[in-house]
Amino acid sequence: MAINTVINAAGREVPLEINGEPVIPFKGVGKHRPEGRKYSSPIPTCADYPDDGNKVVGSLEEALRRCGLRDGMTISTHHHLRDGDLISNRVFDLASEMGIRDLVWFPSASFPCNDPVIRYLEDGTINRIEGSMNGPLGRFVSEGKMKGTAVLRSHGGRVQAIQDGEVKIDIAVLAAPSADAFGNARGTGGSSACGVIGYAKADFMYAGKVIVVTDNLVDLPCFPMEIEGNYVDYVVVVDKIGIPEKIVSGTTQITKSPDRLLIAELTASFLEKSGILRDDVTIQAGAGGTSLAIAVFMHQIMKKRGWRSKFGFGGSTKYMVQMLEEGQMGYILDAQVFDLDSVRSIENNPNHVPYPVFNAYNYHSKGNLTSMMDIMILGATEVDLNFNGNVVTHSDGYLLHGIGGWQNCLHARNVIIPVPLFRDRIPVIVDRVTTLCGPGELIDVIITERGIAINPLRQDLIDSVKGSGLPLKTIEELKYEADKICGQPQKPEFEEDIVAAIKWVDGTIIDVVKKLKL
Amino acid sequence: MAINTVINAAGREVPLEINGEPVIPFKGVGKHRPEGRKYSSPIPTCADYPDDGNKVVGSLEEALRRCGLRDGMTISTHHHLRDGDLISNRVFDLASEMGIRDLVWFPSASFPCNDPVIRYLEDGTINRIEGSMNGPLGRFVSEGKMKGTAVLRSHGGRVQAIQDGEVKIDIAVLAAPSADAFGNARGTGGSSACGVIGYAKADFMYAGKVIVVTDNLVDLPCFPMEIEGNYVDYVVVVDKIGIPEKIVSGTTQITKSPDRLLIAELTASFLEKSGILRDDVTIQAGAGGTSLAIAVFMHQIMKKRGWRSKFGFGGSTKYMVQMLEEGQMGYILDAQVFDLDSVRSIENNPNHVPYPVFNAYNYHSKGNLTSMMDIMILGATEVDLNFNGNVVTHSDGYLLHGIGGWQNCLHARNVIIPVPLFRDRIPVIVDRVTTLCGPGELIDVIITERGIAINPLRQDLIDSVKGSGLPLKTIEELKYEADKICGQPQKPEFEEDIVAAIKWVDGTIIDVVKKLKL
Repeated sequence: MAINTVINAAGREVPLEINGEPVIPFKGVGKHRPEGRKYSSPIPTCADYPDDGNKVVGSLEEALRRCGLRDGMTISTHHHLRDGDLISNRVFDLASEMGIRDLVWFPSASFPCNDPVIRYLEDGTINRIEGSMNGPLGRFVSEGKMKGTAVLRSHGGRVQAIQDGEVKIDIAVLAAPSADAFGNARGTGGSSACGVIGYAKADFMYAGKVIVVTDNLVDLPCFPMEIEGNYVDYVVVVDKIGIPEKIVSGTTQITKSPDRLLIAELTASFLEKSGILRDDVTIQAGAGGTSLAIAVFMHQIMKKRGWRSKFGFGGSTKYMVQMLEEGQMGYILDAQVFDLDSVRSIENNPNHVPYPVFNAYNYHSKGNLTSMMDIMILGATEVDLNFNGNVVTHSDGYLLHGIGGWQNCLHARNVIIPVPLFRDRIPVIVDRVTTLCGPGELIDVIITERGIAINPLRQDLIDSVKGSGLPLKTIEELKYEADKICGQPQKPEFEEDIVAAIKWVDGTIIDVVKKLKL
Repeated sequence: MAINTVINAAGREVPLEINGEPVIPFKGVGKHRPEGRKYSSPIPTCADYPDDGNKVVGSLEEALRRCGLRDGMTISTHHHLRDGDLISNRVFDLASEMGIRDLVWFPSASFPCNDPVIRYLEDGTINRIEGSMNGPLGRFVSEGKMKGTAVLRSHGGRVQAIQDGEVKIDIAVLAAPSADAFGNARGTGGSSACGVIGYAKADFMYAGKVIVVTDNLVDLPCFPMEIEGNYVDYVVVVDKIGIPEKIVSGTTQITKSPDRLLIAELTASFLEKSGILRDDVTIQAGAGGTSLAIAVFMHQIMKKRGWRSKFGFGGSTKYMVQMLEEGQMGYILDAQVFDLDSVRSIENNPNHVPYPVFNAYNYHSKGNLTSMMDIMILGATEVDLNFNGNVVTHSDGYLLHGIGGWQNCLHARNVIIPVPLFRDRIPVIVDRVTTLCGPGELIDVIITERGIAINPLRQDLIDSVKGSGLPLKTIEELKYEADKICGQPQKPEFEEDIVAAIKWVDGTIIDVVKKLKL
């Protein structure tokens, strides 16, 4: 079937319709003006809920039946149990047993543990996934095997889509490490603690029906109530919602690669010499090995200088917790927790507080946290000569990652992408990114083991490190060096079929992923 | 103008239209089924808000202008500053100076300090108040002097009306004891601390525009963020938002009246002997002198018996705080704070936590807290032979009180109304309440200094205190005793004009107040 396409403001060819619904092409950063009112859920009445507040039902199957699970519904889950999630797959096992078809799975992210849902994509239980797809799931989609078209959104874009009614969640199935019988729930406590469950906020607020699944039923009131029982229909108690050691790492590990350590050192040095790192700075970094090393180097500089970060935004790790505990960070605001030290911290430290992604990343909000962050450390699979970034496909054309908070984080004051110049002899800097996830105008600095390229749009940053002795290069120079070493890699070839749409933070379509020619 | 009226399910004649909008007559407890979806505010975009998160503008007037204040708008405020509120009146001073007319003021409650708005009701700046009206304001309304018709709602009914879109707030002006420049705000800190500001939750979530006014601008992040900056348009910093000693009492005082103390003792004794008071009980009591005495007596019993209340729901007072601190209460969940000891407690005690009225009282919710409360101690201006209750008018026909949380609290398991048999020689038990605020089927026990009347619908309670030695009487017997002492008081006479509508918790009209014949 031929679909109408247009060239969007980023120069990418995108369709005007996805999964039978009209969509809006990307218009440029900050250019799309949303119209109308937020979406909302049906008005409930207490008359339909038990006076004693006890919403516990016998099983997840019973809860799904009572929620009226039927063909074509959209089912949401959150990813706070990460690779230890035992609940999401279970929903589709049950749906399949019940003979339900054509569901849309709308997770806040998926993990390798979710690969078994491939069989439900194959047998028609699930029509499509709107969420991140890694590994085998991404491969499945890239090869054109999914019935519907995937829609990839950032964490903030997911919230925007829920709030604006682009995605209407019929049933939210929300795993909770602790919950009371009324449905108040939190991310701490019990044997499946994941620290916070803030990604569930938009889901419980906007879904038609809400099921909380817990393996740790506690007395009312379950505090802090990250999920509010007033929005919950049913509570299900199961033996285990997750596999603890896969929910959070026992510990997060700093990179041991000499090249990556060099990149980390260069990054910290750049931040110090440019004056971006300073007293009262606000910081967000990831949980990858290089990011962790950068955090450690920044911590050392701040300690030496007697500086204190006003706050850091998590995903939190033990390195951030160390800054908090040693006094180099005022608060950790946290949307997800990556290791056991962070779980312990958020349970015990009043300055380590849940901060829902809803409040941090939603672009259709009256401001959000990311634009207030001074330092934003991000990754990328590819960056191009216009500083455009790709995080979802590899240079071989395969869809292999979700967007996560990456697009949202681009709105920070200083967006730094520390990347190796090449991975497995594939250059990271390319002429044109395979898939456009973030416009170059928002990406400020690329830091590699062989030099630092500052976006020419940031003359202020270029000026700030003049004469600093840092290895400054143009992005063209960096690309030239990589190409000299790696040669030109083979380009993937694509069919015409669109297998995935990439949404920008405002709900417009910034790019698509096409089916690989195999 | 003749208005169509009908007799509602409670036998009261009510109109089908109020202030030009159609309304629904009361259909019976739990009988009205809401339809459709919740209301929602317009979709905003971060593109319209400052990247640095600083939303501070020069003055409240500037903020109101930027919000587009114009004739006919609905302006909401909260009442957490109680009789020390310096902000609500200021809004209408400014509106009047700006020549704005026909505003609707939608406070969560009004206090004597708000009496000056009478001049704006007189000069047309304000068309009507939809909220509680006490003292001179109530008198003004009762005498038919307000242009529009007052609409009185319970605290939960106010939230329901906002959520369901019955009341569309154009601009919420929310005073905050502490706020950051982004608009995150809380009830603690600074010189105007009121403990919690949970009544503002529905306002900031649903209003078109939101202004936070503070006299204590703190660094981001202002935690706990009872108001979320993501919903806030402007922040205004003023010298003083309130008069501290009028915001909270230095201390709340137990009654000294021998009659009231007797009522309190009888109430505690009834609760103990009936088995309602027990280990793990959940309790809500008010801040009136008799309620405080009851709390103290309950505390003594629990201490003696080694019992512990699972939680109490505030309005908190030092007597509840004592229970918490001495171990007879697990948590205080708090929607408002009445004295300085409670402010101190909520600032420091992790088991004393804000619990928004939105989550406690909203009947159009998936359950709420009140139906889970075992003991509910409430007041009333009148109770009738069918156990119906009145809290808004006196027997002289004057509108003199708001509904507060009273209607919402009627959904608790055991609703106890301790009242004196007469006040100023006016009997409290009447043939038919002047204004019906709560149906008798929800009111379980009337406790007076001369005996206890249990609602015949609660045979279980009657059985539970058989042979207990408590002075059990029928409500007819109690009324007979009062009438013998007081004689029959003169009945007020009313005109045909409706001056105020009384909403039930589901948004239907349970009764009206008519203009007094003077």
